Amino acid sequence: MFDAEKEKVKIVKYIRDYFKANHLDGVVIGISGGKDSGVVAGLFTEALGKENVLGVSMPCHSRQSDYLDALSVASFYGFEIVTIDLASTFDNFTDKISQLGEFSVEQLHNSNINFKPRLRMATLYYLAALYSSIKHKTYIVAGTSNKCESFVGYFTKWGDGVSDINVLGDLTVEEVVKIGEVLHLPKEVLYKVPDDGLSGQSDEEKLGVSYQDITKYMNGEYLAKDIQEKISTLHKNSLHKFGIPTYKK
Amino acid sequence: MFDAEKEKVKIVKYIRDYFKANHLDGVVIGISGGKDSGVVAGLFTEALGKENVLGVSMPCHSRQSDYLDALSVASFYGFEIVTIDLASTFDNFTDKISQLGEFSVEQLHNSNINFKPRLRMATLYYLAALYSSIKHKTYIVAGTSNKCESFVGYFTKWGDGVSDINVLGDLTVEEVVKIGEVLHLPKEVLYKVPDDGLSGQSDEEKLGVSYQDITKYMNGEYLAKDIQEKISTLHKNSLHKFGIPTYKK
Repeated sequence: MFDAEKEKVKIVKYIRDYFKANHLDGVVIGISGGKDSGVVAGLFTEALGKENVLGVSMPCHSRQSDYLDALSVASFYGFEIVTIDLASTFDNFTDKISQLGEFSVEQLHNSNINFKPRLRMATLYYLAALYSSIKHKTYIVAGTSNKCESFVGYFTKWGDGVSDINVLGDLTVEEVVKIGEVLHLPKEVLYKVPDDGLSGQSDEEKLGVSYQDITKYMNGEYLAKDIQEKISTLHKNSLHKFGIPTYKK
Repeated sequence: MFDAEKEKVKIVKYIRDYFKANHLDGVVIGISGGKDSGVVAGLFTEALGKENVLGVSMPCHSRQSDYLDALSVASFYGFEIVTIDLASTFDNFTDKISQLGEFSVEQLHNSNINFKPRLRMATLYYLAALYSSIKHKTYIVAGTSNKCESFVGYFTKWGDGVSDINVLGDLTVEEVVKIGEVLHLPKEVLYKVPDDGLSGQSDEEKLGVSYQDITKYMNGEYLAKDIQEKISTLHKNSLHKFGIPTYKK
């Protein structure tokens, strides 16, 4: 049985131990307004104190409601949040691309969807280095990928999938929610239907399988054969996101 | 003894085998005008044919001479090269940052230096997805980090250090040069003093050690104690760039 209170205490200790061993002080977290970044923020605030947590909201042609939820997470835990609206940077970049030729919305779809998480990752590292410099402390970037997302590769390679430390990587979606309850994460954030805020579809619609079924698959529980095969294919196709094949002499 | 001709043949086979096994067709390579990307371009052109290689030049407030060298690499091997000048995208982003407060050039130094390779990585993936879509083929991104650079962490985490395939990762700087000779890489590119084109210092000045000494260190050859310690410290401090510490239940 998953004991969320106990697990939370262990994660907080893990963060404190890692920071102490590596002479680190602060953390930068991209706050999307969804539950994963909310739970990560709650855990780091408890581990390091709110004065050592910097939240970053990075709207990029995205929903105002997510932005407001991000602010509410920061205000609930009491840490500083800065907003970097990436829309004009994104537009500047895509204008450059349009100089290469005329491309349809469909042709640009995958490129555009995955550019944003990479730009956000670069922004988080930009701010971690900047805050390290102005605060005379060492800031690192926290990741927010949970175990279900990681298993099926539901993240952008070298975008939201990468960070300096990840405390949710071994927790299923259901477990993240339970820890969110222990952390009293605002309900409208904790129980929001997860989506990427980019494609207009919910995560589960996009994936074609539910997080619950992914958890069942990972636990070896019974699943209909077509769902089993879908998850297995997603997993196999995601493996390239975890390492770099390198020629050896 | 390192046999560059033989090694080249083996790398070309490695690329072909990997592409065949994974149903891949084309490669996107960031062409800096330096030897590493030049050698990678030569290897992939031989392995896949010039029609399956896309070079990308991404000046960003950088030297015109490097840009011309990038064009000369592409013209020598005969593959297509597109130019995405990232200067205005970079400026748009840093303008956003300046809205957070007034920061000195020194305070922004590390942030700015490392933002560029991450923006370039995101650009390469953007083009790989775009070309996959418009050419109805599958393109991936090739990395250009060599063994010496990797050993001392001389790359930007989740920037130029990441890719979909790396064929230089087990080759020292000296070995890369020898393969470049076999590939007839233009001399002004092959023998250019390597630098990041960002900081105004050569790589070796920035690192405080020579690539030759890094190779000696990796081979267990004799080195003065202070140099040994310098390399050992660089190596230890770079280890965080290769993985993401993750809490386990």
